[in-house]
Amino acid sequence: MKALVYTANQQMIYRDEPDPAPGQDEALVSVQSVGICGSDMHAWMGHDPRRVPPLILGHEAVGVVLQGSEPGKRVVLNPLITCGTCDDCSGGRQNLCAHRDLIGMVRAGAFAEQVAIPEQNLIEVPDGMDTSKAALTEPGATALHAVSLAEKSSARPISEASALVIGAGSVGLLTALILLDKGAAQVDLAETNPLRRQTVIDHTDCRIFDPIKNPPRQNHYDLVFDAVGNAKTRDTSIASARPGSIIVHIGLMDNKGSMDVRRMTLQEITLIGCYTYSPLDLRVTLRKLHSGALGTLDWIESRPLGDGGGAFDEIHNGDCAAPKVVLQI
Amino acid sequence: MKALVYTANQQMIYRDEPDPAPGQDEALVSVQSVGICGSDMHAWMGHDPRRVPPLILGHEAVGVVLQGSEPGKRVVLNPLITCGTCDDCSGGRQNLCAHRDLIGMVRAGAFAEQVAIPEQNLIEVPDGMDTSKAALTEPGATALHAVSLAEKSSARPISEASALVIGAGSVGLLTALILLDKGAAQVDLAETNPLRRQTVIDHTDCRIFDPIKNPPRQNHYDLVFDAVGNAKTRDTSIASARPGSIIVHIGLMDNKGSMDVRRMTLQEITLIGCYTYSPLDLRVTLRKLHSGALGTLDWIESRPLGDGGGAFDEIHNGDCAAPKVVLQI
Repeated sequence: MKALVYTANQQMIYRDEPDPAPGQDEALVSVQSVGICGSDMHAWMGHDPRRVPPLILGHEAVGVVLQGSEPGKRVVLNPLITCGTCDDCSGGRQNLCAHRDLIGMVRAGAFAEQVAIPEQNLIEVPDGMDTSKAALTEPGATALHAVSLAEKSSARPISEASALVIGAGSVGLLTALILLDKGAAQVDLAETNPLRRQTVIDHTDCRIFDPIKNPPRQNHYDLVFDAVGNAKTRDTSIASARPGSIIVHIGLMDNKGSMDVRRMTLQEITLIGCYTYSPLDLRVTLRKLHSGALGTLDWIESRPLGDGGGAFDEIHNGDCAAPKVVLQI
Repeated sequence: MKALVYTANQQMIYRDEPDPAPGQDEALVSVQSVGICGSDMHAWMGHDPRRVPPLILGHEAVGVVLQGSEPGKRVVLNPLITCGTCDDCSGGRQNLCAHRDLIGMVRAGAFAEQVAIPEQNLIEVPDGMDTSKAALTEPGATALHAVSLAEKSSARPISEASALVIGAGSVGLLTALILLDKGAAQVDLAETNPLRRQTVIDHTDCRIFDPIKNPPRQNHYDLVFDAVGNAKTRDTSIASARPGSIIVHIGLMDNKGSMDVRRMTLQEITLIGCYTYSPLDLRVTLRKLHSGALGTLDWIESRPLGDGGGAFDEIHNGDCAAPKVVLQI
């Protein structure tokens, strides 16, 4: 099969690879659409010690079952593979499973014509749903999970809360769209890339702004979502959070810099680390995307898998206007 | 009146001061017992920009009303003075009030024969309760508040949770005692000072250990309480917290060092900043202390107010075996 392979720092090669061999209780899926994630970018930059080249990246995938119990079924992949039996898995917090794995991390991912994955990780795509938009299920579930964590910890219901979302990549944008769908009182989306800001303005109702030109109001927000995760955005999060507020830390850009834990303590600010989603988050997100609750989703951009390497370069250079590039096979 | 006055870095002078003049709706209280708090120590070290000498410190006080609506009543002081009308005050989160003040911070504290305080900040002490033990209400309410925040955020009930408490000053020790009273499955109390460890062994049922000799188990605890709050204890907190766990950050020793926010994110660890208490926390704590639920409380040490300066030196030098020194007038 053809695959886009991460071979070295900032190097992707489109080449022939052996077809995957599904293990026991696994299906073989013919990939149709697969999104490029910030964590794929991070790996390609050589910043993720868990992802060692040569490796087929990619985990935001939709395809058709080739081999398995239901051949021909169109499916979204839950890329997070967990044991299914530990306390966390049985408690609905599969994302905390000590044995968790993700496709495109150690085992091969979905930047390829085919991918093998456990049968239980397949979620049926509703009839009539656009395949590329279904590929937003994975980042959307990350966003839904982040909003759910905030909702559970917040003293105020979302409908009375003011929210700041930092970063308008797909996770940040979907977080803002989910907050708007839940009726949040105020949703401000911060993004430094002017091309992305324009795309968001053109295709959504989000209020988006440049945080460099207009720093977010300090000591103001009930909920802050950091979908970037670097020293600067953490500083912004803590400064803009009001007393008793919630910061959800989603992005993994760097692990540097100190945090103003004194302010967090004196103002009772909570910081929640947020990683992926549960199977239920994925299902709910797929339904939400299909229902139109999150808008037209016309802000995605499609490219052939063979051109994926160029997309990585463009995204890295800030030349890509779309919050999400979906590769098509 | 006589008062113990913080006059300069690491300097306390016992001297004559003008009697306080209660304002409108304020009572004048004759102080009987007043504890030395870690934040008093911090101020005395010159590390708290909010507390500027010369200043009468002290806010963990019990006394008798001299002037006010109920003269002769024995009362615990709620040292946190709030507006009473903002959203936070009316929502029961008075500790977040933007107009909050604490006695011994800007206005005069209770290391004195008399202190003025709003009538609404007085809580009646039950008949027969020892005055020195009632002075544990304020640190106890801080501990109760911390446990309540953890309880609300934790996926597991306290009775199924393993907890690590870092620091066996009064707040840390009371946190451990409250967790034991709530039936926590495991409570481990870390303290580096051998004198304090011995006091805890002699007077409580807490399992206490030296974290330098025996570092706490990594990736293990459902709940971690950092009652110290420095770079080292934050590192220990994050390393020892299991996936999906809660860290409550109570101490304010320093604001330095970076935090492993990558681990917090990948393992969905939540860090909750925790500051003081609500009036309800104080009342519940006073009842708990009086009921015997938190043990005999015989680990406090009494000294005359005039000897308070020496107590500051001893605590600072690690020569004080008691988790709490209560000054008596």
